[in-house]
Amino acid sequence: MTSQTVARAQSAVQPIVWTGEVLRLLDQRVLPAQERYLDCKSAAEVADAIHGMAVRGAPAIGIAAAYGLVLAVRADSRSFDRADAVLAASRPTAINLRWALARMRGIWSRSHDVAVLEKEARRIHQEDLSQNLRMAELGAALLPQGARVLTHCNTGALATGGHGTALGVIRTAHAQGKLAAVYAGETRPWLQGARLTAWELQREGIEAKLIVDSAAAYLMSREKIDWVIVGADRIAANGDTANKIGTYMLAVAAQRHGTRFMVVAPTGTFDPNCASGELIPIEQRGAEELTRFRGEAIAPPGFDAFNPVFDVTPAELIDAIVCERGVIEEPTAAKIRALLN
Amino acid sequence: MTSQTVARAQSAVQPIVWTGEVLRLLDQRVLPAQERYLDCKSAAEVADAIHGMAVRGAPAIGIAAAYGLVLAVRADSRSFDRADAVLAASRPTAINLRWALARMRGIWSRSHDVAVLEKEARRIHQEDLSQNLRMAELGAALLPQGARVLTHCNTGALATGGHGTALGVIRTAHAQGKLAAVYAGETRPWLQGARLTAWELQREGIEAKLIVDSAAAYLMSREKIDWVIVGADRIAANGDTANKIGTYMLAVAAQRHGTRFMVVAPTGTFDPNCASGELIPIEQRGAEELTRFRGEAIAPPGFDAFNPVFDVTPAELIDAIVCERGVIEEPTAAKIRALLN
Repeated sequence: MTSQTVARAQSAVQPIVWTGEVLRLLDQRVLPAQERYLDCKSAAEVADAIHGMAVRGAPAIGIAAAYGLVLAVRADSRSFDRADAVLAASRPTAINLRWALARMRGIWSRSHDVAVLEKEARRIHQEDLSQNLRMAELGAALLPQGARVLTHCNTGALATGGHGTALGVIRTAHAQGKLAAVYAGETRPWLQGARLTAWELQREGIEAKLIVDSAAAYLMSREKIDWVIVGADRIAANGDTANKIGTYMLAVAAQRHGTRFMVVAPTGTFDPNCASGELIPIEQRGAEELTRFRGEAIAPPGFDAFNPVFDVTPAELIDAIVCERGVIEEPTAAKIRALLN
Repeated sequence: MTSQTVARAQSAVQPIVWTGEVLRLLDQRVLPAQERYLDCKSAAEVADAIHGMAVRGAPAIGIAAAYGLVLAVRADSRSFDRADAVLAASRPTAINLRWALARMRGIWSRSHDVAVLEKEARRIHQEDLSQNLRMAELGAALLPQGARVLTHCNTGALATGGHGTALGVIRTAHAQGKLAAVYAGETRPWLQGARLTAWELQREGIEAKLIVDSAAAYLMSREKIDWVIVGADRIAANGDTANKIGTYMLAVAAQRHGTRFMVVAPTGTFDPNCASGELIPIEQRGAEELTRFRGEAIAPPGFDAFNPVFDVTPAELIDAIVCERGVIEEPTAAKIRALLN
């Protein structure tokens, strides 16, 4: 990575700040209107922030959960198991959360030392940033000069330890002068694309356009989109990928239009214990996320909804998975196993 | 049609009421929170209501425009051409608007009699309801017992002279006890599905679930959806169909999942002068429809957007076009010509 890239990453927004005493989280529910931080002083507060989506994004919730364990054992050294359970239950789909908790458990079971545990949480946080910078270089290298790209949800500094996964590729490709057009799906129901990705892109001075999620196929039919670039919440052993609802639809549309499809995620996103996509638990959230908006009714009160907040894209629709160890083109179980081992 | 079906249609909401003096339009911008009518006293007011989407839906704007001409010539018998131009310019994509204006021009050029013109507007309105009831029977007959269906946007009584096109098929199929599940896409950016279709379904006692538009492909991968049922704003001579943004994406997803795809539209929706879908003008609306919601910022101020409010579904993805003259399966230019002539 160039020093310019590092400087760029370091100057970016800090959604997760560990003060040494408390975990300060940029409250992503009120962006872009307000930049407000929440101070979490216990694992329960961190779990609430994850469940309530004050902090979101698969890598970011893993990092937050790691610090949550530090807060727990600092208050009561016997509370590790209880805090671990509460944090693990805060959201079901992203495996990074479980991966970070398991890594912290490994350290704790060996040391029972809060200082060592805190160091491990800081390391998870720092590693995520450096992995993202590496993935961004690898992903950007796949793009042609003058690339036209579409992304979904928010996978930027706000969703990670910094720089971002899919949005990190876009950041780096932009810095390299490779991009001719950037589109971002607004990402209903939570509008991560409109509220968060657009905010990050604007702060970086990257020109881009929002689309409603359902316009992606039409966009591809009207102009050549080279790559769809997305993050991941969990990648099964065979490469099937769970990500924000709407990702699968983008992959189906991309296949029809000759648009390539890239998943950008650190190795902590792989779940070797999950053979294929059908086995990934998909979080369902309440109907109110569709029937109300900021407290106002946008559908008749009490109307029902089917609100899965993730979906599964089969490996056959994915052209490349980019992780910090390398690029897996046309992913298969064997290629993934080879890279992870 | 059964007398029960007629009674059902007549009891439904009346979005367009011609009092003989003014055109009263149910203001669809404030539904479902408020049921407020706008009184239009001139063609310019009707054009504003169409452009501003107080009244929307391809058949409904055709009907409203016909009454707009009556208001114009009643005030000044020399104003037909001016009113015609203003109304025709109010929205570009739906051909029904132009079709209704052309039909009114034919009558006016022969009679120059306001009473005759008014009678024609009432006839267009009444015919639309009876065409819808006929299409609903034809479309419902295509569904299997226990059908699971997905619709998009609003194509019900609110979008038409009554009963609805695609939603009319769902109404009639429900009355026949044929439906096992109904899903409705919320239809960003204007939320016609959440605000209007859900409201109509709830009033009719039809159980249904909303989905975010991007969840359609995932829904189809998780459970068998038999039919996607949509309306149309314009059907080209070869069967390519312009409809609400997101329709094309549904057709692409349907093809992958073995879900059939039905377009329901009266013959006034066909445009024989338009050879194929690329020639249909697609309305682009402002970025604010994506960056603001009810006056509040949901994206950074000034952020750009690509906001086409319709898209084009190629005929090859359409299994059946249902119009009041019959059903065209696997539409082609020849089959469409045969039905229209």
